[in-house]
Amino acid sequence: MRIPKAIQNLIESFEKLPGIGPKTAARLTFYLLHVPQGELDKFASATQNLKKETNICSICFMIDEKDPCSICSDSKRDSSIICVVEQPLDVLALEKSDKYNGLYHVLHGKIDPLNNIGPDEIYIQQLFDRFHNGKNSQVQEIILATNPTMEGEATAMYIKKQFQISNFKFQITRIGRGLPTGSDIEYADEITLQRAMEGRQNYE
Amino acid sequence: MRIPKAIQNLIESFEKLPGIGPKTAARLTFYLLHVPQGELDKFASATQNLKKETNICSICFMIDEKDPCSICSDSKRDSSIICVVEQPLDVLALEKSDKYNGLYHVLHGKIDPLNNIGPDEIYIQQLFDRFHNGKNSQVQEIILATNPTMEGEATAMYIKKQFQISNFKFQITRIGRGLPTGSDIEYADEITLQRAMEGRQNYE
Repeated sequence: MRIPKAIQNLIESFEKLPGIGPKTAARLTFYLLHVPQGELDKFASATQNLKKETNICSICFMIDEKDPCSICSDSKRDSSIICVVEQPLDVLALEKSDKYNGLYHVLHGKIDPLNNIGPDEIYIQQLFDRFHNGKNSQVQEIILATNPTMEGEATAMYIKKQFQISNFKFQITRIGRGLPTGSDIEYADEITLQRAMEGRQNYE
Repeated sequence: MRIPKAIQNLIESFEKLPGIGPKTAARLTFYLLHVPQGELDKFASATQNLKKETNICSICFMIDEKDPCSICSDSKRDSSIICVVEQPLDVLALEKSDKYNGLYHVLHGKIDPLNNIGPDEIYIQQLFDRFHNGKNSQVQEIILATNPTMEGEATAMYIKKQFQISNFKFQITRIGRGLPTGSDIEYADEITLQRAMEGRQNYE
């Protein structure tokens, strides 16, 4: 039995998504066979319009409807801090935490030599360009909030070094490391515990 | 920060799929932002055409391009056996195993009282109709290959009872139960081991 072309096409499209293997792709496709055509049309047009109806912000490289994005164009945000993250989803996560009111810079990736991604493949130069010719002299702090992974650390380190070479006067910080809420010291890995000890704070 | 409508729409569409929660839906959507528009168009048209370009077979209720499906219309298949399964994907799995050359009947579900699915909600009556007025008198065996779950067993039991009431002369079998290949007796559950003992066979 040959799988119908229409089904095969959708399975192949699903398979290209990260974390979706052939079995899940088939399951999702056969699930959609039971869904009303109106839902399928909605799904299809959402996919088709995804990139057409969104822009990349020319300042911070966040994805939004307008350019500059709603954060960069919001005068109520604190423009003296810039938080550097790997992905747009990181901005959404930090915004949800409701603890940060500064600006962002989205790198759209991390330095990852094993996958041939160097500093030029992500928006690092654009971060330095934000300070070109004395622009943004109000900035007092850069928070490096790349992921606490090998690549994220390498990216943070690279950015710090470049800023140090350029002799900028703002403070450079790294997002806090330690035990996540709800975790268990017994099961925490060594590096997390090391960072948690190093990062201990006055208990007020 | 408000998520752009175009992104929100696609996240919502993904979230409706089984096994995809809000975080995975967001991850898939942001992944697609980096994909060329051509790929998005392909994904969209595959979704839109999924149901338009497929038919449900009027004999066995498998999903295929033509009606009757390629199995029902294949004269080389053994029409004396019908294998009853829950889902179209079960047909594809059995076909891949290359051990069965008979016909199929796809129920498109299982009897599941907790979710208000009774015999009338799935294609059970259509199975009995295949033998209406002496039709398909060549059938000698019905293999009940519903899943070995509570609902699958109930469905198999229901079908067997209905056939017995109607006094059909073909043999009714249940797909073999026992230890799956590559498994470990030590970790097998009790019911699997009971069925494996009951289903032991001459070792030739």
